[in-house]
Amino acid sequence: VSPADWEAAARQRLEPPAWAYYAGGAGDEVTLADNVAGWRRWALRPRVLVDVSRVDPATTLLGRPRPHPVLVAPMAFQVGAHPSGEIGLARAAGAAGAAYCLSTSASTAPRDLAEAVPDVTRWFQLYIRGGIEGALRTLTEVGELGYEAVLLTVDFPVVGWRDRERTHPWDPDPALTTVAAGGAPLAALDWRDLETLVAGSPVPLLVKGVLDARDARLAVDCGAAGVVVSNHGGRQLDTVLATADVLQEIAAEVAGAVDVLVDGGVRRGTDVVVALALGARAVLVGRPCLWGLAVGGQDGARAVLEQLLAETEAALALLGVPRAADVGADHVARTAWR
Amino acid sequence: VSPADWEAAARQRLEPPAWAYYAGGAGDEVTLADNVAGWRRWALRPRVLVDVSRVDPATTLLGRPRPHPVLVAPMAFQVGAHPSGEIGLARAAGAAGAAYCLSTSASTAPRDLAEAVPDVTRWFQLYIRGGIEGALRTLTEVGELGYEAVLLTVDFPVVGWRDRERTHPWDPDPALTTVAAGGAPLAALDWRDLETLVAGSPVPLLVKGVLDARDARLAVDCGAAGVVVSNHGGRQLDTVLATADVLQEIAAEVAGAVDVLVDGGVRRGTDVVVALALGARAVLVGRPCLWGLAVGGQDGARAVLEQLLAETEAALALLGVPRAADVGADHVARTAWR
Amino acid sequence: VSPADWEAAARQRLEPPAWAYYAGGAGDEVTLADNVAGWRRWALRPRVLVDVSRVDPATTLLGRPRPHPVLVAPMAFQVGAHPSGEIGLARAAGAAGAAYCLSTSASTAPRDLAEAVPDVTRWFQLYIRGGIEGALRTLTEVGELGYEAVLLTVDFPVVGWRDRERTHPWDPDPALTTVAAGGAPLAALDWRDLETLVAGSPVPLLVKGVLDARDARLAVDCGAAGVVVSNHGGRQLDTVLATADVLQEIAAEVAGAVDVLVDGGVRRGTDVVVALALGARAVLVGRPCLWGLAVGGQDGARAVLEQLLAETEAALALLGVPRAADVGADHVARTAWR
Amino acid sequence: VSPADWEAAARQRLEPPAWAYYAGGAGDEVTLADNVAGWRRWALRPRVLVDVSRVDPATTLLGRPRPHPVLVAPMAFQVGAHPSGEIGLARAAGAAGAAYCLSTSASTAPRDLAEAVPDVTRWFQLYIRGGIEGALRTLTEVGELGYEAVLLTVDFPVVGWRDRERTHPWDPDPALTTVAAGGAPLAALDWRDLETLVAGSPVPLLVKGVLDARDARLAVDCGAAGVVVSNHGGRQLDTVLATADVLQEIAAEVAGAVDVLVDGGVRRGTDVVVALALGARAVLVGRPCLWGLAVGGQDGARAVLEQLLAETEAALALLGVPRAADVGADHVARTAWR
Repeated sequence: VSPADWEAAARQRLEPPAWAYYAGGAGDEVTLADNVAGWRRWALRPRVLVDVSRVDPATTLLGRPRPHPVLVAPMAFQVGAHPSGEIGLARAAGAAGAAYCLSTSASTAPRDLAEAVPDVTRWFQLYIRGGIEGALRTLTEVGELGYEAVLLTVDFPVVGWRDRERTHPWDPDPALTTVAAGGAPLAALDWRDLETLVAGSPVPLLVKGVLDARDARLAVDCGAAGVVVSNHGGRQLDTVLATADVLQEIAAEVAGAVDVLVDGGVRRGTDVVVALALGARAVLVGRPCLWGLAVGGQDGARAVLEQLLAETEAALALLGVPRAADVGADHVARTAWR
Repeated sequence: VSPADWEAAARQRLEPPAWAYYAGGAGDEVTLADNVAGWRRWALRPRVLVDVSRVDPATTLLGRPRPHPVLVAPMAFQVGAHPSGEIGLARAAGAAGAAYCLSTSASTAPRDLAEAVPDVTRWFQLYIRGGIEGALRTLTEVGELGYEAVLLTVDFPVVGWRDRERTHPWDPDPALTTVAAGGAPLAALDWRDLETLVAGSPVPLLVKGVLDARDARLAVDCGAAGVVVSNHGGRQLDTVLATADVLQEIAAEVAGAVDVLVDGGVRRGTDVVVALALGARAVLVGRPCLWGLAVGGQDGARAVLEQLLAETEAALALLGVPRAADVGADHVARTAWR
Repeated sequence: VSPADWEAAARQRLEPPAWAYYAGGAGDEVTLADNVAGWRRWALRPRVLVDVSRVDPATTLLGRPRPHPVLVAPMAFQVGAHPSGEIGLARAAGAAGAAYCLSTSASTAPRDLAEAVPDVTRWFQLYIRGGIEGALRTLTEVGELGYEAVLLTVDFPVVGWRDRERTHPWDPDPALTTVAAGGAPLAALDWRDLETLVAGSPVPLLVKGVLDARDARLAVDCGAAGVVVSNHGGRQLDTVLATADVLQEIAAEVAGAVDVLVDGGVRRGTDVVVALALGARAVLVGRPCLWGLAVGGQDGARAVLEQLLAETEAALALLGVPRAADVGADHVARTAWR
Repeated sequence: VSPADWEAAARQRLEPPAWAYYAGGAGDEVTLADNVAGWRRWALRPRVLVDVSRVDPATTLLGRPRPHPVLVAPMAFQVGAHPSGEIGLARAAGAAGAAYCLSTSASTAPRDLAEAVPDVTRWFQLYIRGGIEGALRTLTEVGELGYEAVLLTVDFPVVGWRDRERTHPWDPDPALTTVAAGGAPLAALDWRDLETLVAGSPVPLLVKGVLDARDARLAVDCGAAGVVVSNHGGRQLDTVLATADVLQEIAAEVAGAVDVLVDGGVRRGTDVVVALALGARAVLVGRPCLWGLAVGGQDGARAVLEQLLAETEAALALLGVPRAADVGADHVARTAWR
């Protein structure tokens, strides 16, 4: 029933190495835990006696209407969670009205996914591994395949130290991974490369992994269509701030110019609403979808997403804000005791 | 002996679904726990060498004298806790000098309760389900039946997400519920409706579920006789602030104009005194009374109330404030470490 | 070895009702725990390369030299902890150079103790039960018996609600209690009574149970020789501030005029030094002495006191302050994370 | 894999008295735990899209280049952890490019270590036990033996109260200890002695055990080549601040004049980077090296050091700061919730 129930059920179904890979974080997992706790540090401040007989969670993203502000975050090797893998989760996303973001490290190629779920809103997450030229080719390819946007991951110049993965090494069957080839991360990637990529991309490019308002501003200056406030789910550099703790200052810097998205630790509809209040236009949800996929395949993932969306709608009604677009800083208060 | 003892004993006696219904809260129950913890975050600051040989907990409520500032909060389906149900708890309240507030979702009709306990001070809690006209009829009816005031619940436009209830569904025997009919909550309820209800009510109307000083002001402007600072016992929108954390700012806004009451997490006499210090005129106590009812019927509930009142009197004496009406902001200090 | 070891050993030796009586506190024991934690919230700030080859913990108390700033706090019915009772603990105090404060509710009469330990520095703690006249007679008597000072307890107008005692009622053998007679506490006691008592007392009178700087000032104005910052070991009004959290503001108000003492939660030599840094001239230590008495009689209590004193001397050396009298606010820092 | 794994494995291999000696701290071990927690209270604030293809952790220490900012802290009686003792740990340090600091209380004489590992960068930690003259002779000796610097410990005028050691007394075989002779600590040591020692030392002298910016300034005024911010691993005066909580203010005072080093609680590469951000030029790591030594001798200690260094390099890359020397206050944020 609860997100914790889904997580516990997924843990039972997954082999320890897969569980370690999906659930773990960097170092002592300080940031991993902080991401979840960060949303609760903000309290909702409801208003009453507002007509909420029609709650509308709709938003626009990159100028296009979306039925609600939730997307499925990019995650690697989804076949490791369930045989239906990326296709199953993308179908679940489509059924729930959520855009699905395919990982570079997926177990399904962009073309295969596009053919399997042509009508699902698809985004693509890009790691730069084979150099800028290869990245430009990938951008062109995914644009042609109908992916509507690309998230360029910038917090992965090297792989984070994850003790759980080192304790339980996981070597997914190579047959499962189709895009992961291309060598090590391009640690030399810089802002000029971003300009090159933006110029050569047929689709809007968002910068994923921003935790500093100055970097968000630089991303906008380089032509990015948006930023994703993210610490890679706590998997890269431990002890960095939770995304709930930096979102507001980043949104204050650039939300007037581009779309600000956020991921990390979102588990409840109330978390989604807090993210909106702090200036996010949308939130990416990762592990909870994977737990749903692991437990019940496409139907499980869909159930997780639909509960999250139902909770979000209820939270808007109980907050006294019928339109998601009207949630603002006034609807949250910072607590010092949670 | 302690509130925790009563709670544990009640849990043993109740079926899991009834326990889940009564004890549970929304979402991750952040607010449910915070309500209890909130009172302890305030420290009492006693004065000494004050003559406290006569402690007087009396107050006035809606202009009428009351022997003390404690009421029994409205709670649904009390027959589910003990066969004596609402009548048993109302008798316990009467014996302890506490007003009893009957829930719309009670297992006893307002008329039946009035006939059973004609001499107990009775209030009525109103959900708007069948439209404003039906609500006005109910107001007239309960006024004729001698209910002295009505609490209009405004934090229930939709039902909160309560995982415990979903895990342990509870479908009380329909015979037990007499007023619950009337369909879904009226999510369209707004401030104009409040004005209509105030105008048509033969008894004072208080707005229950206020967590924002601006809403408290609007309630006063609409003619409400008071506000109840409440988050529905943590059962509706999780992560909202504890009532102990918003009471003072709301009382500062309207306590000069109307009565401010509060509920949520009150377990000890010291909690009652903190509520008075923060500006409440009275406090509604819910679950503890229900645990007393579940454990010992009318006598159990009465014992719980009487211990709470004895603790309150002792707290006033030990605080060096013989009259409850003299407790003020000077008698509490905010702590950052509890 | 550690204070926790002594406490655990005492718990094993005592009957549950005696343990409940000695160890318990009021309400949910929030203040009981906070008293201990309060000292740790202050961090010591040592200086180095100071000659500490001679550490001198000496102080003066009521104008008389004392070898160190530790006293044994008044506690009731010490025969319940060990057959040697008050006499055993007073002998331990004498051996350790600590003044011993006899409780009104002792199992040994003031005269009997005076005869048993004529050379131990003795203080007396006074409850007002039989009216002011009786109290004046007691003051005269204890003065004649060589008690050097009297602590007038002012935080006991009524008995606090202690759940542990109610769960494990303890009715010490009447033969054990010699002074407890005299009826209920005098809840009408006020500042004018204090003036009367001061005027009629042959020995210095200190007011015990002060938690507010204004009350400390009033005590000085009434002629008290000092104040004891105390919340009765967390046994009277739960949720009041820890003594470590109010000591500094009270000392700032009156430490220039009279001696300020403190009790509550002192377990370690570092706690003693923090108390000095916050403005106390001396500290009263209660339960730890009783655990020592329960475990090993006079020798056990002496061992506890001597370890505390050795720790205090070591703390002064490691703080870089050879003379206890030179410890000041500069040697502590407030932490927000302990 | 993790530091906690190494610690648990070491605990299994060590006799309880040795474990108590190495792992324990003073008093209630408040500072011992706070040292570790202190680094996590600071959050890292990464920048992105910086070319980190070449990460350079190099620094200069006392004017000499070092490949990275990590040293092995002085610890007593290392033969008690593993037969290879100081020589094994020094070889591990050398292999990892870390300077090794020999303790006065070592189980290996300075000359023996110098002969065993002539090419390892060696420092010496000095306790003053036999008077200043003896200390000057030791300084001359270690200088002749090629020790590059001496850390003068100033937070040991008396031995701290350590309950674990008193519970599990440890009397290492006298044959193991070669330098410990010389009597009790010189509690009279003061700033003039420091001037004498600096004047007579053939190698740079750093003052170890500074927790106050004024003392750091005095050390510089007396000619010290640096200060080590240290609370002796939480082993001397309990409740003092964690080194992570005082480092920044001390570095602000003297880091422009001399090298500031820090020890205490460093477990992860992120801790090293936080220390640099707060103004340290290098960090001394103690217990983790000893756990590595206990588990796997020289190879174990080397593995621990190399993981720490690899984590440090990864942290620099993920922080977007390719050169350790460029880490600054801008890269950390204080949290109130960890």
